[in-house]
Parts: sequence; structure tokens; C-alpha cells
Amino acid sequence: MNRVSTGGAAPQRVFLQDVAMRDGLQAETAFVATDDKVAFVDALSRTGLAKIEVTSFTSPKAIPMLADADEVMRRIERVPGVEYTVLVPNVRGVERALVTPPDEFNLVMSCSETHNLANLRMTRAASVLQLLEVMRLSAQAGVPVNVSLSCSFGCPMEGEVPAEVVLDHAATFVEAGARGVTLCDTTGMAYPSQVAALCDAYRRRFPRAMLTLHVHNTRGMGLANALAALHAGVDRFDASLGGLGGCPYAPGATGNVCTEDLAHMLALEGCRTGVDLSALLDCARRLGGLVGHALPGQVVKAGRRLDLHPVPASVAEARDRAVAPLAGRPEQAR
Amino acid sequence: MNRVSTGGAAPQRVFLQDVAMRDGLQAETAFVATDDKVAFVDALSRTGLAKIEVTSFTSPKAIPMLADADEVMRRIERVPGVEYTVLVPNVRGVERALVTPPDEFNLVMSCSETHNLANLRMTRAASVLQLLEVMRLSAQAGVPVNVSLSCSFGCPMEGEVPAEVVLDHAATFVEAGARGVTLCDTTGMAYPSQVAALCDAYRRRFPRAMLTLHVHNTRGMGLANALAALHAGVDRFDASLGGLGGCPYAPGATGNVCTEDLAHMLALEGCRTGVDLSALLDCARRLGGLVGHALPGQVVKAGRRLDLHPVPASVAEARDRAVAPLAGRPEQAR
Repeated sequence: MNRVSTGGAAPQRVFLQDVAMRDGLQAETAFVATDDKVAFVDALSRTGLAKIEVTSFTSPKAIPMLADADEVMRRIERVPGVEYTVLVPNVRGVERALVTPPDEFNLVMSCSETHNLANLRMTRAASVLQLLEVMRLSAQAGVPVNVSLSCSFGCPMEGEVPAEVVLDHAATFVEAGARGVTLCDTTGMAYPSQVAALCDAYRRRFPRAMLTLHVHNTRGMGLANALAALHAGVDRFDASLGGLGGCPYAPGATGNVCTEDLAHMLALEGCRTGVDLSALLDCARRLGGLVGHALPGQVVKAGRRLDLHPVPASVAEARDRAVAPLAGRPEQAR
Repeated sequence: MNRVSTGGAAPQRVFLQDVAMRDGLQAETAFVATDDKVAFVDALSRTGLAKIEVTSFTSPKAIPMLADADEVMRRIERVPGVEYTVLVPNVRGVERALVTPPDEFNLVMSCSETHNLANLRMTRAASVLQLLEVMRLSAQAGVPVNVSLSCSFGCPMEGEVPAEVVLDHAATFVEAGARGVTLCDTTGMAYPSQVAALCDAYRRRFPRAMLTLHVHNTRGMGLANALAALHAGVDRFDASLGGLGGCPYAPGATGNVCTEDLAHMLALEGCRTGVDLSALLDCARRLGGLVGHALPGQVVKAGRRLDLHPVPASVAEARDRAVAPLAGRPEQAR
């Protein structure tokens, strides 16, 4: 197993990208006020995250939660060093988004034909054509593009999705000029050796393209998959604060991997994420109030590894009893 | 990263040991009937687990939940190939347990002085003396001994526990004849590279002694830690069905790693555990009823990776629309 940092080697730089405000909120039912979204993005901007997926320029009818995409993008404060990305599904989305241009457009399609039909209501071939059109317009506007490939590790309806299908879709977009691809474990079907193998194959085939891993914790393997990817050289991770969200279209799907839990593990593994874990945990504690329900994040509940607990009084008593004979107290006192 | 199974290599044998009926139940408040315990152990015995921690011969006053240890051990069916282990804290426990001798005695102490005082109300030195006495009696009776070392990866009150302290305690018991040691992450402080390093150091120092890893999922890293251990050559894992239990003495502690979630990951990683995952999931589904509350196991909720979901009707409609032009339908039908 390759260690990411051993001895005197410099710690590995890892880029953390939070998707709670788009991928997470999209799965919520109760509308979150625009003011609250803006304030939350502004707070996240000060945690040291590398990238924030702010919103989605989909049709307000399709996703009412994110109908205020224009206003949110106009009002958030752009903190230098943080990239602000938005999802755009089509040319209309790009045109809307360009009014307050983000640092990146995130495009989405699925590697599974069935999932693409269920989720986007078109074939994969039609999605490819549409996204290439979006890419041409983005290039004209000078906004770089990332493509998120859903179901890269399996489809909840079809089952296995061959690695070649995933890599060929990645090739289509990388060759058309995408800066990078996100391999998405949309419904938590990925397992560690699969993650390592696919990420490794991607990096060998596209050595100059960015690679992001987007994992879910649906079957408990979220951080194990992130670890496997880390050791395969992956240095960019999507995650969702508090573990907010999932995929509303994929049956049975729950749980984006939790940003603060991932950041906590990466710090322990010696990675340099630039994230201020205290600030991130503060945001995570606020998020439950924003969406009005409990969230699956675990470090928020248990505290960081070295957040110590007070020593109970019984310990001093037990210690006193233990040393009593040495102190010359009567034997009965033991 | 060493793969545990690649190409034509034989899959790695991994031994899964369930602790729900002892470590898990111990943390529960409502008494589980003896009949139910016996039936549950008998069901677990048919899932292919390598070892089951059945109960604890502690004082019934200290742990009323396990006051029926004698009766449970007398009534369970011993399935060939399954090892039945019990916790014994002292000579009195051994004497009680020997009436229906188990296949192994599990002894416990903590590597942290403060935690040992809080948990066992004695110093580590006193625990060592007491456990060596238990080992002498066990050897006379011909029952092998395993020693579980709590707080091997950190103490919730002291913080870091040096690896040397853990390994020196292991040495004390291995040299006195223990068949093996369990390194316990009692309150979920372990992280992957720490697990790999400590397990590796143990295996180099005690090449002939068994090594079991006992991890918690308190900070979400349970399966990531198991993965790191697997890749460091560890082939025995404690886990608790449904994730039942924790440590009632360590503040903030929650969540043994979940046996069925671990078995699910190990199977995907190509390990040969001998476990029938369907049978294990059946047991996990029953366990919530036995203890009367929800459990954190995730595969029970999401299904196994390839438990597929039905294709929604919208997919056929979307596919029909997509092929309509080719079938000569009017362009508007697109």
C-alpha cells in the first residue's frame, strides 16, 4: 500500500469540493431561502475548500429548490482561491449562467443508458450531443468545463457498467476539451479495488485531464473508497457537507459521502487539503438547521479524534485505592 | 497498494468474528430474553462466521444483561467449524465458564491507564496480574486465550497511546501463551495509516500469534480502517451485527463496525470469508426487533451492491420518444 505521506516527504495536496448546495439541496423538499443559501456559500468559502458547487441552472420547474440560481450566483462573495462551479444541463442553462459567470461549468450525464433515460429522459447519445453543444458555447465564453459521469461504478437498474464504457465517455469529453471528469458513484455501488482500478485506468489514459472522485456512503464504503482512490493517486474529491443529498432519481440511493468526515480522515492521513476543520464543522452544525432535519455526518456527533473527554471522578478514586497499600494504609482499604 | 486478490491468485481467507451478543448487547438497557439470545446465536452459527463471542462471565451485578451467561452457553448448539468465545474478567469468571467450556476465553484490558481505571477500576499493572492468573487457570483447563487490548489506537481521555505501549502489552500476553491479541479501537480513534502501521508492527514482532482487528465506525472510518488492515495482511476482524454496541464507559463512543457491511465489502474485495451474506442479512434484519431500536447497518437498508431496482415506466417512454424520428414519426413527436 502506497502511503501518501511518509517520513520527510511533503504531504500530498488534496482538493476538496463541496456539493451540498447543489447536489445536496436538490434532494430536499422544503425550499431554503435565497438569503440562507448565499450566507451558507459565503461561510463555506471561508473554510478552505478548493471548489464549491453553488447551484444548478436547470429549469426552475424541474428543480424548484434551485430556481434562484441566478440570484445566488450574483450575490455570493467570490473568495480568491476558491472555485465556484455550477451545473448546467443545456445551452439555455449556459446562457443564464453566463450573466454572472462561474469559474467552471459542471455537465452531467450517465454512463448507464437506463439511468440516463430515467434521470435525464434522453439516450446517452443524445446527452453526448447536447453536452458537446454546451461545451462549444462554454469555450466561446472562456469558461472551463468539467463533466460528471453518473453511474461510473454501476447502475442501480442495469447492474455492472463496464469500465470501458466509462472511459470511452470520458474520452469523448476530454478530447473535446473538458478540463476534467468526475467519476460518480451515484448510488453507492463502488467498492475499493474497483475504485482503485478505474481511477488508475483513467489516470493512465488521460494523464493531463483532471480527475475527481464523487463517492456515496450508501453501503458504508464511502471513506474506504476515498482511501483506495487516494492511494491510487486521486487528489480531488467531491463530498457533501453533513452527507446531505443523494440522487433523487436512483431508487434506494442515500448519502453523499460527508465532507467534514472526509476532511477529518484526509488530515489524519497526512494530506494537505487547506481545509480549516473547525470552520467546516461549524458549517456542518448549521446545515441541519438549514434543511430542518438530522444529517448523517459522524465527526459532528463524535468530535474530532483528539477532542478529548473529561476524566470521570471514579478514576481518581480507583487510582487512590490502587496505591493505598504502598501509602501504608490498612490492607482492608484495598 | 497490495491487492488481496489479483488475476489468478487464490482469494485471501478472512475470518469474521461477531461480537453483537456480548459487546453489542452489553451496551443495551432492556434485557433480552435468554431464549432469544440462544435462538439468535444459533442463527448466527449458520451464517458461516468463524467465531461468535457469545456472552460474558462478568458479575451479573455489573452487567445484568449477560447474567444468563451460564444458561446461554449450556443451551446454544455448537456448530462444527464455528468457534465460541466468551469474555472472562477474572478467575471467578473462568470457573463459571468452565462448566460449559467455550472454545476460547477472551480477556480484556486497556492500553490506557486512565481508561483502564475508568472501565475496570484498576491499574493496568493490576489488570496484567489478574489476566496472567486467568491465563494460568485457562492453560490448566486446556482452553486457549485471546487478549483484547482496548484503546490500542488512542484513549478518549488521554489522547494518543504510543504504539510501543500497545505492543509491549501484547508481548506480555503472547509470551505468557496467549494464542492471539485483538487490537481494539474502542472509541473510534483509529485512522487508516495508523491501523496499517500498528498491525504491520504487530505481525513483524509476533509472527506466530493471531491478530484480530476490532474497529468502530464512530468517525465514519470503520470500513476504511478495515481496508487498511486487510492490505497490511490482517485476516481476522471483530465486528458487530447491525453495528450494535459500543463502549459504555468511554464517553462519546458509538458504533462497532457492522458485520454485514464489512462482510459485503470483503466479498467485493475478493476475500473468502465463508459467510453467507443472505443469511447474515436475515439475522441483521431480526436484530433490530430483538433490541427494540433501529441499527446503523447500511447494507440492510440499501441492499447489496447488485440487488437491482426495477426500471421505471418513464424509461420506456423516453426510449420511445428517442427512436421516434427513426421510425418515421412526425418530427414534432421528438
